[in-house]
Amino acid sequence: MNKIITIGREFGSGGREFGRRLAEELGIEYYDKEIITAIAEKTSMSQEYVQEVLEGKPHTLYPITIGQSMLIQDNFYIQQEQSIYLAQSEIIRELAQKSSCVIVGRCADFILRDLKPYRIFVYADMDSRIKRCISRSTDLEKHLTEKEIKKQIIKIDKNRAKYYDYYTGNEWGDKSNYDLCINTTDLVIKDIVPAIAKML
Amino acid sequence: MNKIITIGREFGSGGREFGRRLAEELGIEYYDKEIITAIAEKTSMSQEYVQEVLEGKPHTLYPITIGQSMLIQDNFYIQQEQSIYLAQSEIIRELAQKSSCVIVGRCADFILRDLKPYRIFVYADMDSRIKRCISRSTDLEKHLTEKEIKKQIIKIDKNRAKYYDYYTGNEWGDKSNYDLCINTTDLVIKDIVPAIAKML
Repeated sequence: MNKIITIGREFGSGGREFGRRLAEELGIEYYDKEIITAIAEKTSMSQEYVQEVLEGKPHTLYPITIGQSMLIQDNFYIQQEQSIYLAQSEIIRELAQKSSCVIVGRCADFILRDLKPYRIFVYADMDSRIKRCISRSTDLEKHLTEKEIKKQIIKIDKNRAKYYDYYTGNEWGDKSNYDLCINTTDLVIKDIVPAIAKML
Repeated sequence: MNKIITIGREFGSGGREFGRRLAEELGIEYYDKEIITAIAEKTSMSQEYVQEVLEGKPHTLYPITIGQSMLIQDNFYIQQEQSIYLAQSEIIRELAQKSSCVIVGRCADFILRDLKPYRIFVYADMDSRIKRCISRSTDLEKHLTEKEIKKQIIKIDKNRAKYYDYYTGNEWGDKSNYDLCINTTDLVIKDIVPAIAKML
């Protein structure tokens, strides 16, 4: 049976690095952005659009009084969002059936629940996440203040939580939904990965 | 510097076994019930009484209208509870300064926060905790039904949470207060301990 590891993560906690290194250490596949490319191919939507929808907040129903034109636009958005979620679920299932792998984000822990994946959640305190963001920032991001970075982190995680809660009915980051929760504050990720790999 | 590991745990999750095996694997001291014996010696209270207070719920203030005799009785109980907490804090600090160790429960993560202990929380789903309780039950406990065991587990954890929240101002079991949270559902504890020890 394939070994499937899913990684949920707070933004800036190093979850992606953790997942990539864990896959390397275990000698298994690693999937993250590749899934977006595959969804774009499957749905004939652009990669940018798919990413935007996946990172956006889940649809909120508008009151019926708000006017029909908005409702139509709205319905279209719901349909697209759900097509993307469906395509994503199919792709993730195909990947998990193909070989052992690490999958980062994308509700993979829930989508693959019948395969009993090992579900890891990576988190860290806010200061450490801000520091990590600063150390890895692009030229554009370097112009952001710490306060602005913090605001972005909170916003991104709020969207991740909304998306996860909406599609899974579970609470994002609630430890009862995971097998292992790792706080990466003050940790060098590459130092802990070999031990976690050994455990798995 | 001494390596200090604190273990918080849900009742029935195997946290105590995990702590004991981890200390063995690392070749360091393990403290659990020894602390109660030391508190009893320090406060001249009986071991049973100390244990009772530590496992009981934290004091709730009664409305002032309830009559003086209850207030006096109540004040006495608060004083004793706080003496025990104080003695416990001193003992835990002495132990942590003496040598590297694993300490189970007793708000040790909070009491030793200036020493930056590695804070582990062990948890499991309810079915697995009930099963673990049944497999380790005494002759007396063997007469309890699963429903009764579940009721006891919930009650014990509620008391642990109240005690922890009261003395630390933090939320018991909230992953942001720990460095690692391990779900022991479907796990054989002795199989995972060597990897965790390696990580530490």
